[in-house]
Amino acid sequence: MPDQHSATVRETVFPVRYAETDAMGVVHHACYLVYFEEGRSQYMRDIGSDYARVEASGYQLPVTETSIRFLGSLRYGDMVRVRTWIEENRSRRVTFAYEVLNGKDDSALVTGFTRHVWTDAQGRVTRVPDSWKQVFSD
Amino acid sequence: MPDQHSATVRETVFPVRYAETDAMGVVHHACYLVYFEEGRSQYMRDIGSDYARVEASGYQLPVTETSIRFLGSLRYGDMVRVRTWIEENRSRRVTFAYEVLNGKDDSALVTGFTRHVWTDAQGRVTRVPDSWKQVFSD
Amino acid sequence: MPDQHSATVRETVFPVRYAETDAMGVVHHACYLVYFEEGRSQYMRDIGSDYARVEASGYQLPVTETSIRFLGSLRYGDMVRVRTWIEENRSRRVTFAYEVLNGKDDSALVTGFTRHVWTDAQGRVTRVPDSWKQVFSD
Amino acid sequence: MPDQHSATVRETVFPVRYAETDAMGVVHHACYLVYFEEGRSQYMRDIGSDYARVEASGYQLPVTETSIRFLGSLRYGDMVRVRTWIEENRSRRVTFAYEVLNGKDDSALVTGFTRHVWTDAQGRVTRVPDSWKQVFSD
Repeated sequence: MPDQHSATVRETVFPVRYAETDAMGVVHHACYLVYFEEGRSQYMRDIGSDYARVEASGYQLPVTETSIRFLGSLRYGDMVRVRTWIEENRSRRVTFAYEVLNGKDDSALVTGFTRHVWTDAQGRVTRVPDSWKQVFSD
Repeated sequence: MPDQHSATVRETVFPVRYAETDAMGVVHHACYLVYFEEGRSQYMRDIGSDYARVEASGYQLPVTETSIRFLGSLRYGDMVRVRTWIEENRSRRVTFAYEVLNGKDDSALVTGFTRHVWTDAQGRVTRVPDSWKQVFSD
Repeated sequence: MPDQHSATVRETVFPVRYAETDAMGVVHHACYLVYFEEGRSQYMRDIGSDYARVEASGYQLPVTETSIRFLGSLRYGDMVRVRTWIEENRSRRVTFAYEVLNGKDDSALVTGFTRHVWTDAQGRVTRVPDSWKQVFSD
Repeated sequence: MPDQHSATVRETVFPVRYAETDAMGVVHHACYLVYFEEGRSQYMRDIGSDYARVEASGYQLPVTETSIRFLGSLRYGDMVRVRTWIEENRSRRVTFAYEVLNGKDDSALVTGFTRHVWTDAQGRVTRVPDSWKQVFSD
């Protein structure tokens, strides 16, 4: 659950892909980082922005840290519900937090965060321009 | 374009994922097989069925052949539009055909087909039960 | 670096695959969970075992938690060096730790751990049989 | 099997990764395009070159067409053996052919080809410089 009362939680829903399952019959654990990324992408589209535009403007937001807890699993046929919010928004870094819920109920199956630094196109850590920082302040 | 006038073309649309891009800046060619699979999955959901139910009923539809032509490319920020139709529907095999279009216009970027055989849960080729075959005859 | 003096560190080396790169030109962050998995797989092969045999004997080792720090990046053309060791080996869980090094020097680019529980084939948490636990005690 | 007597067949061997399996218990069909790519990458490394150097010199070799036949499957615990050779080497395009064999015997599980065009860094089709073309003429 979001730590901060002020954080806006945005949700994106899409079906599990067969390619994402593994021989245990469930979604492979590495796919949740891709689901988080998709939650983050949708978050930005929802606020009228787009990570493609971040890169087009000469900035990048590489992941510097992640932590994930796996409490349950998804199978082919299930819907993935990713809830995404911003946990921290500083001049040099942003932290997104996520919950992946089972499409059938509200139980959290996977929770985690990804921390990102702002860099220029050459990968040097930089101070984000206010215009981009405010995008994440809604 | 569908070869047969009778074929129903179904479309599914979703955003390119960043993880799907490669160092050329475009979607990696192997991802189109996953896009085709997603088109096929959505096709089945659209006709009120689900490949998960095929497997639950003791059958599988493994891919035995594919052929793909790459005419253009997609980038992060683009929408993927997959058009899917059934090219052939026999008692032992099904062939799906696909076009991936650029979300912005109607140009086909990638075209191809996947051929599948009906097998039982042990992977032995089998004759599909009429109930499943008719699902693909709409 | 391994926390415990007693831990045996095993290394596996393989080339970066083009499919693993993303539009930033570097290996996508989700791939490191797959590299960790490959380090873990090779660790087991090196001690004369195999995770395939764990599953064949009716047990599974799903990931319950992971944490990763990204300090640098790999590109196509680089070799991946994964150093793997066991950080914790209990009757119900095992924790593997990893360092991914640049093939050219000894600098750690990515570090992390994956925690696993022992379950039966139905996914119920179980106490691992001594025979399997001792495999990880070398 | 290679069509041309003159073609040199090069082989690369690596283990199936757990992440590559799907809920059918076998390697997902899209992974074979990645295996082909790895066969192609190793082919270039074996002849003392590297696709990374192709790109560094301002050229690219995107895939324009592929065709694959799936005759059998691989599981986690199996070794992947990819046999790669050059089927066609022209001034504007190259075609690689592949067989994926079961590590245990010599049976071909998957066969296929990938056709590539030479482009410049902007993706415009170009005539390959002789220096690169000769690399593939061994």
